[in-house]
Amino acid sequence: MKKLLVSVALAAAFGVQADEGMWQPYQLPAMADELKAKGLEIDAKSISKLTEFPMNAVISLGGCTASFVSPKGLVVTNHHCAYGSIQYNSTPEKNLLKDGFLAKNYGEELPATPGSRIYVTEEVTNVTDKVKQGLENKVGNDFYQGIEAKEKQLVAQCEADDGYRCQVYSFHGGLEYYLVKQLEIRDVRLVYNPAASVGKYGGDIDNWMWPRHTGDFSFYRGYVSKDGKPADFSKDNVPYEPKSFLKVSAKGVSDGDFVMVAGYPGRTNRYRTANEVENQFEWAYPEGKMLRERFIEIIKETAPEGSDERIKYESLIAGLANYAKNFTSMIEFYGKSTMLDDRKAREAALTSWINKDSKRQAKYGQTMAELDKLIKESQEHQARDIILGYIGYTTMLPTARKLYRLANEKQLDDMAREPGYQERDMTRFKSGLERIDRRYAPSVDKAVVLDLLTRYAKLPSEERIPELDKAFGIGKKFDAAKLSKVLDKMYAKTELGDKATRLAWMDKSVADFKASKDPFIQFAVAMYDTDMAQEKKEKELYGKLMKVRPQYMDAIIAYNKELGKPVYADANSSLRVTVGHVKGYSPQDGLVAVPFTRLEGIVAKDTGEDPFDAPKKQLELIKQKQYGDYYVKSIDSVPVNFLSTLDTTGGNSGSPTLNGRAELVGLLFDGVYESIIGDWGYDTDTNRSIQVDSRYMLWVMKYLDNADNLLAEMEIVH
Amino acid sequence: MKKLLVSVALAAAFGVQADEGMWQPYQLPAMADELKAKGLEIDAKSISKLTEFPMNAVISLGGCTASFVSPKGLVVTNHHCAYGSIQYNSTPEKNLLKDGFLAKNYGEELPATPGSRIYVTEEVTNVTDKVKQGLENKVGNDFYQGIEAKEKQLVAQCEADDGYRCQVYSFHGGLEYYLVKQLEIRDVRLVYNPAASVGKYGGDIDNWMWPRHTGDFSFYRGYVSKDGKPADFSKDNVPYEPKSFLKVSAKGVSDGDFVMVAGYPGRTNRYRTANEVENQFEWAYPEGKMLRERFIEIIKETAPEGSDERIKYESLIAGLANYAKNFTSMIEFYGKSTMLDDRKAREAALTSWINKDSKRQAKYGQTMAELDKLIKESQEHQARDIILGYIGYTTMLPTARKLYRLANEKQLDDMAREPGYQERDMTRFKSGLERIDRRYAPSVDKAVVLDLLTRYAKLPSEERIPELDKAFGIGKKFDAAKLSKVLDKMYAKTELGDKATRLAWMDKSVADFKASKDPFIQFAVAMYDTDMAQEKKEKELYGKLMKVRPQYMDAIIAYNKELGKPVYADANSSLRVTVGHVKGYSPQDGLVAVPFTRLEGIVAKDTGEDPFDAPKKQLELIKQKQYGDYYVKSIDSVPVNFLSTLDTTGGNSGSPTLNGRAELVGLLFDGVYESIIGDWGYDTDTNRSIQVDSRYMLWVMKYLDNADNLLAEMEIVH
Repeated sequence: MKKLLVSVALAAAFGVQADEGMWQPYQLPAMADELKAKGLEIDAKSISKLTEFPMNAVISLGGCTASFVSPKGLVVTNHHCAYGSIQYNSTPEKNLLKDGFLAKNYGEELPATPGSRIYVTEEVTNVTDKVKQGLENKVGNDFYQGIEAKEKQLVAQCEADDGYRCQVYSFHGGLEYYLVKQLEIRDVRLVYNPAASVGKYGGDIDNWMWPRHTGDFSFYRGYVSKDGKPADFSKDNVPYEPKSFLKVSAKGVSDGDFVMVAGYPGRTNRYRTANEVENQFEWAYPEGKMLRERFIEIIKETAPEGSDERIKYESLIAGLANYAKNFTSMIEFYGKSTMLDDRKAREAALTSWINKDSKRQAKYGQTMAELDKLIKESQEHQARDIILGYIGYTTMLPTARKLYRLANEKQLDDMAREPGYQERDMTRFKSGLERIDRRYAPSVDKAVVLDLLTRYAKLPSEERIPELDKAFGIGKKFDAAKLSKVLDKMYAKTELGDKATRLAWMDKSVADFKASKDPFIQFAVAMYDTDMAQEKKEKELYGKLMKVRPQYMDAIIAYNKELGKPVYADANSSLRVTVGHVKGYSPQDGLVAVPFTRLEGIVAKDTGEDPFDAPKKQLELIKQKQYGDYYVKSIDSVPVNFLSTLDTTGGNSGSPTLNGRAELVGLLFDGVYESIIGDWGYDTDTNRSIQVDSRYMLWVMKYLDNADNLLAEMEIVH
Repeated sequence: MKKLLVSVALAAAFGVQADEGMWQPYQLPAMADELKAKGLEIDAKSISKLTEFPMNAVISLGGCTASFVSPKGLVVTNHHCAYGSIQYNSTPEKNLLKDGFLAKNYGEELPATPGSRIYVTEEVTNVTDKVKQGLENKVGNDFYQGIEAKEKQLVAQCEADDGYRCQVYSFHGGLEYYLVKQLEIRDVRLVYNPAASVGKYGGDIDNWMWPRHTGDFSFYRGYVSKDGKPADFSKDNVPYEPKSFLKVSAKGVSDGDFVMVAGYPGRTNRYRTANEVENQFEWAYPEGKMLRERFIEIIKETAPEGSDERIKYESLIAGLANYAKNFTSMIEFYGKSTMLDDRKAREAALTSWINKDSKRQAKYGQTMAELDKLIKESQEHQARDIILGYIGYTTMLPTARKLYRLANEKQLDDMAREPGYQERDMTRFKSGLERIDRRYAPSVDKAVVLDLLTRYAKLPSEERIPELDKAFGIGKKFDAAKLSKVLDKMYAKTELGDKATRLAWMDKSVADFKASKDPFIQFAVAMYDTDMAQEKKEKELYGKLMKVRPQYMDAIIAYNKELGKPVYADANSSLRVTVGHVKGYSPQDGLVAVPFTRLEGIVAKDTGEDPFDAPKKQLELIKQKQYGDYYVKSIDSVPVNFLSTLDTTGGNSGSPTLNGRAELVGLLFDGVYESIIGDWGYDTDTNRSIQVDSRYMLWVMKYLDNADNLLAEMEIVH
């Protein structure tokens, strides 16, 4: 039922070629012929080498992707990826968000928001054997801890090289492990951003939607010390000189053209089992959507529009709403899809393939059943776990717990500590505590906790946690008014709302915590043993899954190998390459989304009110048909955004979209509403990524914002 | 700004040809070459002859269009045009609306709702000279009355021929008058309708929208006495044998094909002046939208969902909402259009042309100024007039007024009476009074009147009408509670809620009314002189406009004649022919509406709940790809609805859409949302009519409803 009409004209533009797959660069040379047939002009091998062009120009900002576009460390990414830095530098007098910003020279560039980083991937090493060695006979929590210890060792060795950040990534649920070594540039500066009415045009209304007219791009620059090493911000620092950078295409792409994206996709679930799919779409997404929507309601009720409290929560509201919309789409398109049946069929085919051969049976015969058993186990307390999970979005309870955890972890050697509590994590830990000042209001925090605990209190008694009940005085008969009073007292008494006090707790001992009268600290101490026991139980289960899921993936890979098909791993925030084509789609029978939008679409959408309030100068330029160098005859305008079949997800934001010669033709910044469910399965008919067209970027820079210095700095290919 | 992207592929399907124009049949032979070039295969002259094929097969139902499709008087029209008859024959036990209906033979056919008529246009005569003769020197009310008297004479002479209904239509605001003589078939029977879940699929949500998947068709049959004359319902009546009928195409049309529609479009405003446009879009539509939405709110508040009262008002709510949506679209697209500037430019061009020649100046030099003066005069009290106008949508106040007016008119000879109060109008008058039983609840009527009178009371004192103030006790200081009590008493005391009482008043004298204690009758009597004075004032103004607007149109026609362009008159419910093409459009930059929807779109939209609850059998047939004889390779399915550039408006509903050989390829039933504003100006890019495809009609009849008897009766062209 999900199969929709794709116009014959569009489909005929190129043959039927599935563009599914988030490939690890090393997998590409084996696919060279296919890539060439699709339209790749450069050698497939070159994309597999991270230290060569173009891959060494593709960088991570942590959560977003970016790329170098000049020999002097100029970085282009999405406006929404630089948003924090733009906001950080804005004041009522000089509002960069509203008016845009352009540094006319290095000296005018502004420091990005604290904690901003540019990560340049320099090495990716398969460390599977090193990680698993000696752990063959371990199970459960022991296996989990064993893997974690090996990962920490590898990271520590790798980070001994000053100026680098390292991480071990697990692929295929633990079948393979890769150590990624990234140069960590710490002096990041804001160079240029268009006004939000260009860079965020359409705002939340157009978020995940097509047609789209967003100029979602901004520029950073990386700085290093004079000797070329990563360094903290200093006036003496100099622009980083990357080994290579991307040329920017002024010619752009046309319908049907080959495109590829290199970037850091966060998370997909393409290999989850039918049981996991069913539970996620029929229980977890509806429940999560309800909780998010309720969470938003409570914030809005407690912190009315215009209040100081509300300003603090706008960013959380946006985040909650973003995924409430995401879940809504998931649920909608699951209902229209045959996904569950497809998964079941896939598993049946795999099982049948396994059963056809006694060796396979010996190897994988029990895998499916074991995996299903563990999955079922993991879902056992989900009604409780989801509520407690959303308490993680509140402030005081998690903060107190994290602080006390830190005091406990600090009793251990650094290498023995839980990831997140090691010395290497302390900068982030601290900035997390500092940020609370701008994101916390006791009234809101309390109201949300009250709602969540009320839900918790209504769970069957066997789901309840005695220590938690005790901490809040939740008895057999739940009394909401009483709980409300308990919380009121806690929020009235706590001093964790004070930044200095919070930060001071970072250095205190377990004994200090035990002696504290702060109600939230007391809560954290009271819950600690229970929390740890619960975590151990979870790790026991994860440890088991980390043995079974790789078996399952191994079977899938072996099965596909027999069919001559390569298998890509689910996204895990590591560097991937996806290839595809510029292509429209049919969002609905009787409608076709054409692959390009035009300048005129900006004027048509404009209401003069946020988020459809394009700058007057821009509207004038368009009305006067000032297309300049970027006019495209086939659409009789300048293209603004375009659609592609590229297989991407969250984390790909800011990724350079490249043509067959690896020239930058756009920046990926979103997917269409129908493709949100693509995280669970790529649909050739509806999976579409949205890019801002390089020609629109150049047009805005040249005619709207007069960013001549940057246009001169970049290498623009006509 | 309204100019939107039309895909190059679509636009290239045929040359740039404006398909604007609602032509009077007599105008077509002069356009024969152009029509032939567009794709008309039959002789243009034949369409101009109302007594020949195909025009004599196109009939009016009064408010809707229909056509004969068999030699035995079988009539096809829209499901929504036959809705009343389907509802009338439905009972909880035998719900034809829900389950559909098919008469397997003449005997099973059911009488249509009382008052149903089939009008077969037999003669259209230019009576301009007859109407205007001798009135050259009359002005104002005298001119108005003079014209009216002539019209009544012509109608009376024409209707002397038994079984005919006649009407004089004014064209170009009174430049020309045509007498239309129609055979009036009074025995109309319901033959076949698909279930509402086919015929009204998408309901109000999809109303005026594309993509569309509505099977909006149903069948009637006309019956006459054995000697072939119109007659009231009788078992002895026999099917009417039309002089000709349309063949139904099983082959249908393709993208770009020529199509034409013959039908009875109600009203357009293509020649209204810039001042009228500005006032309508910037004042009247916003005000009307607000009043309609408020009206709906009051009904919903007063008559809660599920109440008996609510059932009575569902049809009024639908009507109010339909035009609230219409006005919303008008306002939206006016804001995006350059309509006002275009009108001003058009008027400036006309003025300049007039001023270039002294003869023209003598003839038309004052026209524009005079017209504008009269228009301004007509708008003088519009803030009051619109409120009083909406009182016309209530029940008791207008009913009492109409009854007392009838008593007064009856004192005159039939020919001297106001149209609407002549003997020939009494059947309709009576059925209007009867219908009140099913459409009136005192609580709702009072609540709406209270709201409207409250608005009236807030008008400046010079806008108020002393007699009206007095009737409701509205003083200088408005007291809403007091007015509410006044109304409560009126509704409690009146006996007009009783059908027999209402009907009895039809035969009472002016003296009877004056002696009545019924508060609404007393209101009507109290207001009568004021109402008549007001009407006379309006007729005085209309009379002036009826002299000036024809001059204005005469200038426009002369100007266009010099440019070699024919001018069509604004729609006035008379028979027109429009020609165009099958063609998609771009509803928004980045989106293209393709011209055909497919069966699969029905499944994709289906939620199982009204209005997206297609019959299970239909969903099964589609899932099993049972396309049968109506499969179209280019869309890999059966087409459901299609788009055309045909220039149509309300009243065209049910019109046969014909191919170049005058075979029925679809039924027109709607326009797209973007084309609602088309009533004021045809836009080549966005004006699109929506048709149900003949192949879908035949598919539903054959595979879903097994209407083999009707398929055998019709002449189907393969």
